[in-house]
Amino acid sequence: MVLLRSYVSGGWHTATDEGAPLHDAATGEEVARVSSTGVDFAGALDYGRRVGGPALRELTFHQRAALLKALASHLREHREELYAVSARTGATLGDSKFDVDGGIGVLFSYASKGKRELPNDTVYIDGAVEPLSKGGTFVAQHVAVPLHGVAIQINAFNFPVWGPLEKFAPAFLAGVPSLIKPASQTAYLTAKLVELIIESGLLPEGSLQFIAGSVGDLLDHVTAQDLVSFTGSASTAQKLRAHPAVVRNSVRFNAEADSLNCSILAPDARPSTPEFDLFVKQLVTEMTVKAGQKCTAIRRAFVPEEMLDDVAEAASARLAKVVVGNPAAEGVRMGALASLEQREEVRRSLKALLDAGSVVYGDPEHVDVVGADESTGAFLSPVLLKADPQRSEPHEVEAFGPVSTLMPYTSIEQVIEFAARGGGSLAGSIVTGDPEFARTIVLGVAPYHGRLLVLDADDAKESTGHGSPMPQLVHGGPGRAGGGEEMGGIRGVLHHMQRTAVQASPKVLSTVTGRWIEGAPRVEGEHPFRKSLAELRVGDSVVAGPRTVTRADIDHFAEFTGDTFYAHTDEAAAAANPLFGGIVAHGYLVVSFAAGLFVSPEPGPVLANYGLENLRFLTPVKEGDALTVTLTAKQITPRIDQEYGEVRWDADVVNQTGDSVAKYDVLTLVSKEQP
Amino acid sequence: MVLLRSYVSGGWHTATDEGAPLHDAATGEEVARVSSTGVDFAGALDYGRRVGGPALRELTFHQRAALLKALASHLREHREELYAVSARTGATLGDSKFDVDGGIGVLFSYASKGKRELPNDTVYIDGAVEPLSKGGTFVAQHVAVPLHGVAIQINAFNFPVWGPLEKFAPAFLAGVPSLIKPASQTAYLTAKLVELIIESGLLPEGSLQFIAGSVGDLLDHVTAQDLVSFTGSASTAQKLRAHPAVVRNSVRFNAEADSLNCSILAPDARPSTPEFDLFVKQLVTEMTVKAGQKCTAIRRAFVPEEMLDDVAEAASARLAKVVVGNPAAEGVRMGALASLEQREEVRRSLKALLDAGSVVYGDPEHVDVVGADESTGAFLSPVLLKADPQRSEPHEVEAFGPVSTLMPYTSIEQVIEFAARGGGSLAGSIVTGDPEFARTIVLGVAPYHGRLLVLDADDAKESTGHGSPMPQLVHGGPGRAGGGEEMGGIRGVLHHMQRTAVQASPKVLSTVTGRWIEGAPRVEGEHPFRKSLAELRVGDSVVAGPRTVTRADIDHFAEFTGDTFYAHTDEAAAAANPLFGGIVAHGYLVVSFAAGLFVSPEPGPVLANYGLENLRFLTPVKEGDALTVTLTAKQITPRIDQEYGEVRWDADVVNQTGDSVAKYDVLTLVSKEQP
Repeated sequence: MVLLRSYVSGGWHTATDEGAPLHDAATGEEVARVSSTGVDFAGALDYGRRVGGPALRELTFHQRAALLKALASHLREHREELYAVSARTGATLGDSKFDVDGGIGVLFSYASKGKRELPNDTVYIDGAVEPLSKGGTFVAQHVAVPLHGVAIQINAFNFPVWGPLEKFAPAFLAGVPSLIKPASQTAYLTAKLVELIIESGLLPEGSLQFIAGSVGDLLDHVTAQDLVSFTGSASTAQKLRAHPAVVRNSVRFNAEADSLNCSILAPDARPSTPEFDLFVKQLVTEMTVKAGQKCTAIRRAFVPEEMLDDVAEAASARLAKVVVGNPAAEGVRMGALASLEQREEVRRSLKALLDAGSVVYGDPEHVDVVGADESTGAFLSPVLLKADPQRSEPHEVEAFGPVSTLMPYTSIEQVIEFAARGGGSLAGSIVTGDPEFARTIVLGVAPYHGRLLVLDADDAKESTGHGSPMPQLVHGGPGRAGGGEEMGGIRGVLHHMQRTAVQASPKVLSTVTGRWIEGAPRVEGEHPFRKSLAELRVGDSVVAGPRTVTRADIDHFAEFTGDTFYAHTDEAAAAANPLFGGIVAHGYLVVSFAAGLFVSPEPGPVLANYGLENLRFLTPVKEGDALTVTLTAKQITPRIDQEYGEVRWDADVVNQTGDSVAKYDVLTLVSKEQP
Repeated sequence: MVLLRSYVSGGWHTATDEGAPLHDAATGEEVARVSSTGVDFAGALDYGRRVGGPALRELTFHQRAALLKALASHLREHREELYAVSARTGATLGDSKFDVDGGIGVLFSYASKGKRELPNDTVYIDGAVEPLSKGGTFVAQHVAVPLHGVAIQINAFNFPVWGPLEKFAPAFLAGVPSLIKPASQTAYLTAKLVELIIESGLLPEGSLQFIAGSVGDLLDHVTAQDLVSFTGSASTAQKLRAHPAVVRNSVRFNAEADSLNCSILAPDARPSTPEFDLFVKQLVTEMTVKAGQKCTAIRRAFVPEEMLDDVAEAASARLAKVVVGNPAAEGVRMGALASLEQREEVRRSLKALLDAGSVVYGDPEHVDVVGADESTGAFLSPVLLKADPQRSEPHEVEAFGPVSTLMPYTSIEQVIEFAARGGGSLAGSIVTGDPEFARTIVLGVAPYHGRLLVLDADDAKESTGHGSPMPQLVHGGPGRAGGGEEMGGIRGVLHHMQRTAVQASPKVLSTVTGRWIEGAPRVEGEHPFRKSLAELRVGDSVVAGPRTVTRADIDHFAEFTGDTFYAHTDEAAAAANPLFGGIVAHGYLVVSFAAGLFVSPEPGPVLANYGLENLRFLTPVKEGDALTVTLTAKQITPRIDQEYGEVRWDADVVNQTGDSVAKYDVLTLVSKEQP
């Protein structure tokens, strides 16, 4: 007997009782036993806050991202071990890859986003500096810092690897330790995952804890700095959301619940169009992958009334080819449900759905099974129904298995209204070759969805499909889908952080954020282009100029570059321009001259100018105007894996009266050391 | 007798009973009666969803912003009427301005932010296009659309004008109708405000409803598309958060509750420094403005142990000058609490606080009153306490009146820990002349705060102070402060919208969002610079070039502009550069030549190039390279108040092998019609 262990407070904990048995979904054999008896839940939370949090907060976003990448590589090396355990959950190899490779992919994605979209720093700057006073001595900016608690992550049985990892990755990147609690049914696979993670030794102590078994009194101990995120049934989500300690402490609570997701076939996608086939194929895929145990699976398929029979026929023909059986057996395309109890629940839901419709394909009570015994494994035939969309059941009863319902619609307004009757969904898809139809449906049903997919001949080959949440995109949905939002790239990281407005003088705000801001002191001395990244300080500046712009300069620039736009060349036309009232210098001339002024030409630590940002031409430059530029080091970002880093400079070009004519950020690469 | 009316379902509703009396805070006279008996709450919600929502969603963000601006101007013209009613709440003229002008300021701020930071469109684009495939045929972007429900706004008694307006403005700008429910105690002032708004006739029908009196069964009827936002006590917040319909439907719930906000005096701010005086002055201001009835007021004042007596003395001297009395009377600086019941509650809290400390200034049971009778008005002396910070009461018991508690600390780590004991606050302030001290405290206590103010000699004159939430900045805080977030500029607008990830081919995604994106079709034809805003379409393009860059061009550009950076001029040094390996053309030369290629020089609808964004130099350009540029209309934004609008162009410069050497957005102003 294998009794699954928890990993809490820095060590493995074995339950003090025998635990409850967990069975192989296909063979019914006992796989493991599970129990959390004896775990000190309050102690685990305290350990996470006291040990894990501080350790994570010492690392920059880039350092955390690098650890996620290393962890992803480690798990990829060991994925065969995970596939093997995964098969016992009833999953085919394809299903296992969806779960395991999907989870590893989330880690890689967050590693990459963290490096590219977050600073190499411990503080995140949210949005622009907000001026709060006329004189400029009082300004504000929002910062985001990690919460000082633990992210409690309660996962569903259907994705024992992807589920924990999609919650863990953004929490870790944010700097918040995780406490992972999988559904017991398939906890043996999550336990294997956690074992691999802990054995890797990659993560700071306390940044990941794991509970095999029930959560005991865990939630009684949550504080305002902790987070609770849950994936699973709507009824459990409601219980957790209303938990007294969650309510009392305004604990951040995120739920992602199964929903009645829809797919909409457009009228243009008639039989024999590529879109018709895509719709049918995707419907069958969503019904059968993971035996339909996906919270994003298509439960409601809306079809133009006149095409209902065509779709029913085409889908039935495809479903007839789906071989059900032991995932280990040759040719099997759909495995078992996670447990016999799960199958009973699906059958109960099917009964309710049949009150409002009829079976198009499949037998809820019987299925031919390959390589296993129908009576001991949790096998179920894919079942396609059709129903009256004016009834409530198809919009409200979810059969969490290989079950979907076809429904007819007669107008675009009607199908938008039908889609909304799901009361909030994780994902929806529209299959059409008509972009305008797609736009109307997308904007019409968006308030009810977290994610929408438009499938057509153009994107079908590369599409990841209706049922796949992507780490770059938000996952969650309003209402019945739980009202939550996870992932979405950096958005999911920020959900673990406190956004705080900081009001101060520019000098102080600059010290707090580590970025130079307008009004903060500038330090002039050695030319800042002569300083290495190690020597350069935020606020280091150079003032250069003046250089007078002559009419000959403007004429020459027009001729040399070919930019003979009338405002630079045609006296009369330029005079008629409502914004200029006369010949003006090219904006490109202004920034080129400014570079000529601020540059320090000799070889040195500055390697390249790789871009400009937020360039605005604020005052027209006319002949005779004298330009002076001030360049100030604004943000310094060493790269953790290169001998150089990025320096963002503030450039402000003013004319002889002191008015800014151009403002922008200059982006450069600078060596960490002097060459 | 004035019985306040509700404004629901398109008309004024008078209660069917006599209502409960509301009393003048200073004189005790009856001001009005309040009751919502007979209001059809479900009907009001339905009306908002059916009439108000669609009307608002037809308007663009810019149109909604313009209405907010007009409304703000209208209310400003009528503000004297609001001041007059406000006086009856116990407010001095200064207090009234804080409430009334503050509220009008929120409208102006949202009008301005909406115009500048939101598109002139009905859909908001959230973040960048996310590539989801190698071939580029499958991409995604997040859009935000207004929820299809009603924003139910339940406000506190202390800001009868600002409170409703700070919730209404972002909801309106988002396109979501509001249902305003003020606290009964001062509902007569909100009723006056709503009367002015409705009389203005500015707002679309159904976009604002108002309930005078209790909410009845309102909350039983909320759906997943509605929002509930609440300002008031923590206990009511908890009740609302756990309301069965709110929990069942995952309704977006935002709470902003009173909190134990702190102010921290730094060790450097010794007596006779400007910061010492600022600390004391701000403390007294926060105690006495609105008679301390501000959810952001300073309740806990942390002072270095050795300065506790100095602060106590200086604050007492200032408090002694505060004249308490009828707000209408000459020289009165602090008015009454909102009601006698309110005063009783403050006295109860004071008793609890006195278990852990003692009185420094003031008499909880008596105060000298000017122009009124102490026995009939809700007057209370400002009361300054000092207490042991190791006790729990000063961190947990809030006296919602002119009450604050001084507490000593001995180290920076200790005061950070004390601040956190408040369990989550709306606002905190740090008074110091030492930017490093400010940084340590700000980053240390940020997880527990929604807003932090650093006050020093530099920003004191222009500072808006500890207690003033600003529309540009988030208002709310974790834990005890309610766990919510309001305002924060556009952030507060987005809280009323559903963020949805849309996955599609570039062509379809471009149609959905109304923006050209990479991979979507380009249309070449007449040069797009020849088209007016009315004629131009997203996707209109021009391809121009090639132009070969010669070594003479590079040499000449260096000489002409003065940009003689070694990578453009010094063979040997450029060869040693790890990124270039030889002489490269200036980035400024590349974009200047590109402009020379794509420009259509003759006078026409294009008025000006006002900026560039997101410029990246992707591949070095060397002598002999031939540049071709493609310019494509990416986003077209007509201004509602000008004869022109903005056009954002995608510029892609490639070399002879088709590699992008520079990508950027060109920003232009274009006339709506041909000149």
